[in-house]
Amino acid sequence: MSPDDLKTLVRTVPDFPAPGILFRDVTTLIGHGAGFAACIGHLAERTAAAGAEALAGMEARGFIFGAGAAARAGLGFLPVRKPGKLPVPTIGVDYALEYGQDRLEIDPTAVLAGQRIAIVDDLIATGGTALAAADLLRQAGAVVTHAFFVIDLPDLGGADRLRAAGLTVDALMQFPGH
Amino acid sequence: MSPDDLKTLVRTVPDFPAPGILFRDVTTLIGHGAGFAACIGHLAERTAAAGAEALAGMEARGFIFGAGAAARAGLGFLPVRKPGKLPVPTIGVDYALEYGQDRLEIDPTAVLAGQRIAIVDDLIATGGTALAAADLLRQAGAVVTHAFFVIDLPDLGGADRLRAAGLTVDALMQFPGH
Repeated sequence: MSPDDLKTLVRTVPDFPAPGILFRDVTTLIGHGAGFAACIGHLAERTAAAGAEALAGMEARGFIFGAGAAARAGLGFLPVRKPGKLPVPTIGVDYALEYGQDRLEIDPTAVLAGQRIAIVDDLIATGGTALAAADLLRQAGAVVTHAFFVIDLPDLGGADRLRAAGLTVDALMQFPGH
Repeated sequence: MSPDDLKTLVRTVPDFPAPGILFRDVTTLIGHGAGFAACIGHLAERTAAAGAEALAGMEARGFIFGAGAAARAGLGFLPVRKPGKLPVPTIGVDYALEYGQDRLEIDPTAVLAGQRIAIVDDLIATGGTALAAADLLRQAGAVVTHAFFVIDLPDLGGADRLRAAGLTVDALMQFPGH
């Protein structure tokens, strides 16, 4: 199935998580056996073509796509976690959300110096989470040049922010107008 | 790599999350490209052999293994989520933890009546989370006969509790003595 075919499997839910927001829900794509396998195949091909040596994905939906693509490509997967989840000493980064802030943590010993790690997540909106993850991986010594998404909401500017931080952004599909 | 080989990739962290507990940490296995691909391959083979038509995994580490195995087997993946994460009306189940309680939610429209759904998670300890997930999937109309894990801690009795609830339990490796 092509990315255009996969786009038809994404469900749009109005007014979540707040009134006026159209939520692009990937659970219907994930739940479709052939569609999910095709989606993972596209991500695995693209990450391998970018020369990634490992993939990192953000808790929790980034785990679904990042781990799937890593296993398909034969790469290791590095989970970028919410605070307090990892059993070892971590490095972390705080970042701003629309309301309040959040924090991501990784195990710095999971990153080899100079290792090419690509970021994978389900969706890029304003890009704050992906930027924070890239910062954190770079702090640990990774070379982070690419970020892959299933969905890009281009009107929210996240891909532009990531490009300004030196990342190549690649999404399987876009929902303009958001 | 065989399950015995994969066992050598699991890191043991003492005193997490509480003093006296040996935490079996799968992030080192996930981070090993060949090991993670082999692990996903074993899970995909076993779930397919069990006749599963879809896989369900629990947030968050269950997403890593469940989604990977589903994509490999060409099956849909059903995320069993923490409260408030899904954008659609959910059904949920509260269950007891060692201290306090937790809740799991699913989108009931993601389950077809009579669909054979197998559970996948990284580790079974007392089995409370897996039992709650099985209950929830059955409430939604699924036939849940199998639960797959990377790690079983047999001394904590979770596999026995699942068997008593009519589930076949299959783990790639065991850590007896906890």
